[in-house]
Amino acid sequence: MRSTSAPLLITMGDACGIGPEIVAMAFARGAAGGCVVVGDLEVMRRAARVTGEQLPLARLDSPLEAADVPPRCVPVWVPPGMPADVAQSPLGRVDARAGRAAAVCIEHAVARVQAGEAAGLVTAPLHKEALHAAGVPYPGHTEMLQALAGGVPVRMMLANDELRVVLVTVHVALRDAIAQVTRERVLETIRIAHAASARWGVPRPRIAVAGLNPHAGEGGLFGDEETLHIAPAVAAARAEGIDARGPFAPDTVFMRARHAPGHPGEFDVVVAMTHDHGLIPVKYLGVERGVNVTLGLPFVRTSPDHGTAFDLAGTGRADPSSLIAAIGMAQRLAAPFSGSSFRSTTC
Amino acid sequence: MRSTSAPLLITMGDACGIGPEIVAMAFARGAAGGCVVVGDLEVMRRAARVTGEQLPLARLDSPLEAADVPPRCVPVWVPPGMPADVAQSPLGRVDARAGRAAAVCIEHAVARVQAGEAAGLVTAPLHKEALHAAGVPYPGHTEMLQALAGGVPVRMMLANDELRVVLVTVHVALRDAIAQVTRERVLETIRIAHAASARWGVPRPRIAVAGLNPHAGEGGLFGDEETLHIAPAVAAARAEGIDARGPFAPDTVFMRARHAPGHPGEFDVVVAMTHDHGLIPVKYLGVERGVNVTLGLPFVRTSPDHGTAFDLAGTGRADPSSLIAAIGMAQRLAAPFSGSSFRSTTC
Repeated sequence: MRSTSAPLLITMGDACGIGPEIVAMAFARGAAGGCVVVGDLEVMRRAARVTGEQLPLARLDSPLEAADVPPRCVPVWVPPGMPADVAQSPLGRVDARAGRAAAVCIEHAVARVQAGEAAGLVTAPLHKEALHAAGVPYPGHTEMLQALAGGVPVRMMLANDELRVVLVTVHVALRDAIAQVTRERVLETIRIAHAASARWGVPRPRIAVAGLNPHAGEGGLFGDEETLHIAPAVAAARAEGIDARGPFAPDTVFMRARHAPGHPGEFDVVVAMTHDHGLIPVKYLGVERGVNVTLGLPFVRTSPDHGTAFDLAGTGRADPSSLIAAIGMAQRLAAPFSGSSFRSTTC
Repeated sequence: MRSTSAPLLITMGDACGIGPEIVAMAFARGAAGGCVVVGDLEVMRRAARVTGEQLPLARLDSPLEAADVPPRCVPVWVPPGMPADVAQSPLGRVDARAGRAAAVCIEHAVARVQAGEAAGLVTAPLHKEALHAAGVPYPGHTEMLQALAGGVPVRMMLANDELRVVLVTVHVALRDAIAQVTRERVLETIRIAHAASARWGVPRPRIAVAGLNPHAGEGGLFGDEETLHIAPAVAAARAEGIDARGPFAPDTVFMRARHAPGHPGEFDVVVAMTHDHGLIPVKYLGVERGVNVTLGLPFVRTSPDHGTAFDLAGTGRADPSSLIAAIGMAQRLAAPFSGSSFRSTTC
């Protein structure tokens, strides 16, 4: 009898990186039950060999067939338009075929999720230079998913056991990121973080907004983005009933929000202005614990918070922990009202 | 009999912040033996009362008299030019008198160290707006000390038990920091970090150089500072025999350098391009563990890595841990060849 629950889709990522093999490892460890790989069959066969385990593949005609696949078998759905020779792309190198294949997987996985055939999306890492070489007009997953979802405003959240960070700017040069820190963009980020937090059982999250400049501008001495843009965005959010506070000095706000044994965090989520302000603290205690969640999409999407690690591809030394954490978080988010939180829900 | 070892000088910092009281607490806890406070007598009396302990003060005519002071007595040297009414400045407020007094203390403390009457300098926090209000033409300690030492190139290092970070840029708006990331400035920072590491018993430190942009520019897609400035600086340093590597992605280089039980760091020191890239990871596990060391000066100078905490001033709730760590580090650095290191020395 076929299960009625829709599967999670896992895109294989860049075929030349560790994506396919950490996906295979997640299945080998029994951590991907109910998931379907969206990818190339030969690439996944190469990846399964890296795990050193007997890991048969089952080619599906549709993600909906996932429930018919025997246990310990990896269900693979090959989307239309997959480059025929992607498995020829050498491990550890930028290759346009791998970039094209990664984009095809994402595009069709989103379509299946939007058609209601899948419950959500977990994406293995892709390589931005390979995307670029393939002529894909997006620098990364987040931007591509946003476009596929019709241009809805989205934000990248990085989360681990002790910290959740939502980013105002992501994959742009730092000088361009500064120009993107506007009142409107900061306010939209606060709103998205606020709305998404209900999924974690926190209907009125305590949102800390970090500054952009050292000491959050030190009263205007070191830059004016705080006074011109960030503080007005915080004020506007508060006027809407959102519990946003700041701007706080970037160098201490993450420490203050950190939720660890004996150290209850002061905030439920931190809004950070730049990619690295936000990702440095999330990754500091180990990338294997971090998960990337795209907030604002009309469907669930998570991913590990590391890259393709070309230097490790094919060695069998890649660590699937972050991908496994991403699968677990997607499973929780795809089941409404079952999310956990740092603090008990008050509703 | 007078001891022949010169004392460490501790400047009291901004009189309206927690500086004077954490200095008093360090003495009350017996953690400041052999040190002399450079400050105002009335301000230090007010601070001693906050500790809730009997803490008599002894006014010295010269730092050299420190050895004559009885135990459990706080030796205070009042430098010439101290504003007479600085103790009237209210706690928790920006006050030009406090800014002026803080600057006077630093100026005269440096002169005493340079005259050989003191072994080194530990500075309690000052407030940049108060300095500004007093017309002091420096945004912070580092810049002022550099000027007092004749304009030698200096860099700020933040260190705790598991991480040492040297900063290319410090107290400037982020957009100005980007403009300051030049090949020359990065190379000079690497050289200063390399030379200073000998004090920690690491004559050939493994220096990681962080990038400026997300993913260190991702091969030029997100900014060109890595290719134009940072990579050439690393190459030039290597040509001089320095073991510098990078530029590495800012979001993972600190995690890689982190030296903790079960996690030996890959590097001895990280060179970071901006204030917050460097300080976020050093402070993430708690500011009380971090110490600020000025590298490149002709004398030892350390300080706690937190600010004046105006909201805590006078409450007795300020934590002197980072100041005590700074005193300990200054004592080790002022005793040549006694420094400790993350790893055993190889010489």
